[in-house]
Amino acid sequence: MENKNEISKRVLSGERIAVARAITLVENEDAWSIKILEDIYSATGRAYRVGITGPPGAGKSTITNKLAAAYRKQNLKVGIIAVDPTSPFTGGALLGDRVRMTEVEMDGNVFIRSMASRGSLGGLSKKATEAADILDAAGYDIILMETVGVGQSELDIAGAVDTTIVVLVPESGDSIQAMKAGLMEIADFFVLNKSDRAGADQAVMSIKMILNFKPKKNGWQADVIQTVASEGKGIDKIVETIYLHRKYLEDSNKLNDKRQKRMVNRIQELVKEKLHFEFWDETRENFLQLNIENVVRKELTPYDLAEKLLQNFKE
Amino acid sequence: MENKNEISKRVLSGERIAVARAITLVENEDAWSIKILEDIYSATGRAYRVGITGPPGAGKSTITNKLAAAYRKQNLKVGIIAVDPTSPFTGGALLGDRVRMTEVEMDGNVFIRSMASRGSLGGLSKKATEAADILDAAGYDIILMETVGVGQSELDIAGAVDTTIVVLVPESGDSIQAMKAGLMEIADFFVLNKSDRAGADQAVMSIKMILNFKPKKNGWQADVIQTVASEGKGIDKIVETIYLHRKYLEDSNKLNDKRQKRMVNRIQELVKEKLHFEFWDETRENFLQLNIENVVRKELTPYDLAEKLLQNFKE
Repeated sequence: MENKNEISKRVLSGERIAVARAITLVENEDAWSIKILEDIYSATGRAYRVGITGPPGAGKSTITNKLAAAYRKQNLKVGIIAVDPTSPFTGGALLGDRVRMTEVEMDGNVFIRSMASRGSLGGLSKKATEAADILDAAGYDIILMETVGVGQSELDIAGAVDTTIVVLVPESGDSIQAMKAGLMEIADFFVLNKSDRAGADQAVMSIKMILNFKPKKNGWQADVIQTVASEGKGIDKIVETIYLHRKYLEDSNKLNDKRQKRMVNRIQELVKEKLHFEFWDETRENFLQLNIENVVRKELTPYDLAEKLLQNFKE
Repeated sequence: MENKNEISKRVLSGERIAVARAITLVENEDAWSIKILEDIYSATGRAYRVGITGPPGAGKSTITNKLAAAYRKQNLKVGIIAVDPTSPFTGGALLGDRVRMTEVEMDGNVFIRSMASRGSLGGLSKKATEAADILDAAGYDIILMETVGVGQSELDIAGAVDTTIVVLVPESGDSIQAMKAGLMEIADFFVLNKSDRAGADQAVMSIKMILNFKPKKNGWQADVIQTVASEGKGIDKIVETIYLHRKYLEDSNKLNDKRQKRMVNRIQELVKEKLHFEFWDETRENFLQLNIENVVRKELTPYDLAEKLLQNFKE
């Protein structure tokens, strides 16, 4: 299969092993990956992409599992991408995989892939999007992208999916705190998981109160769904709300706008990478190395040196 | 003071309010910030920069506090930059600030600044480095840069400092897991905090065992220091080890190499930003907008469109 046309062809026919191989090439930033992504591009856009984010321990993996099972009952093919920007400290990606495998194991219509950020220099959400494209082109109907909410990652995921779900738990602490800073903007709806625990009603109330302050996006009002995912409670309601949100996006033509905006960002990223790659040829690398000593010795500022390098590029 | 020469001058004379203002300009990516950074650049490089990273709850803030107090006893001026990539879910930056304030409050020779990533599009480690430059130029002797270890951030901080400390606790779980994936490379030494708790000896043993597998960096052997930071135990040992590591770097000329490498990365980042900024003029923005519909309709791939945009740039 080590032929990129062959891989592309097999991805398009939905071959599991080719999908796995293609995602690995994407993950390794292999030169082939961009060719495969080009080959399959026209077959993308059919899958619906759902992002699931929230703090560690909120039960995102369990919810993702249960959602996968629910969609399987509708006979849909499900792709799961677990984006794990948490560090070696937690080992989250690996554990997540194992938990998931016991649940949806052996079902040829569920494809699971964890992508961790270990050591790689960013670009995780780009890679996750490319992996989603591969699953999309391979005929997966629903793609669930799960990420732990740390800093930038939950904002990135919102830019990569059609519907974003933010999962909280009663003990997430101050829900008002949790609502701040971008979360209000990215959540299409909230899930309060483990809502059989103490403090659930109060947490729901706080979230609703804050949601009421939010101007309604003409026609869509974010809400809170209570779940006990480990017992399967509330999962149907999530499925229904995803459906309603999708319908809202489609009917208002917002889905198209959203995907267009996503594509603009992606093209800008592609250009940025390419520019960087083309800029740093041998001549400029050498020029940088020759002058860096002067910067360290404070005879030249880094801003001056950057300017000199750029001057030469433009001429 | 709203004059950039004025701010630079006052930063250089160590005026606290000017330092605060300059860091705010850096944080807001104000156009002035680059001019101020240029002005002060030749006065940087005197401060010693220490990075402190580790999982949430390991006691990084307490250690940072106590280190600041210890350095104050040596009559050194201390800058603290708390880089907080954790999301709204934790509210870490704010809490961290409050904890710190009670300890080193009112001391004009300690400057504390939290930088959170909320909503901003990356670039946090760049901004933290620029803030450190300002503190450096203002005459702070030691700059402590603290960040919670989530994904990329702990690797970024190692690239921004002279000495990197990784803080763990006995209950960090599998220390072998914690050692994997880049942490071995970035830690100049480890601190096992809360080492009065159960499992401390075993954790130290595991860390030491793994450290023994690591080839010694000619002359420097990373070790583990046990602390109970809340009681001040082991802080002196950290100060001593930072001193020894600094001496090792200076004597072997590795400090210069390290700073040179840091500067190379920084110049590459500056160039990348500038290229991006110059590339996206009105013509190209329009070209992108005109053609994006075709990409969404699958008549053109994003890769083709990026290529077309770049082609036109090179001609």
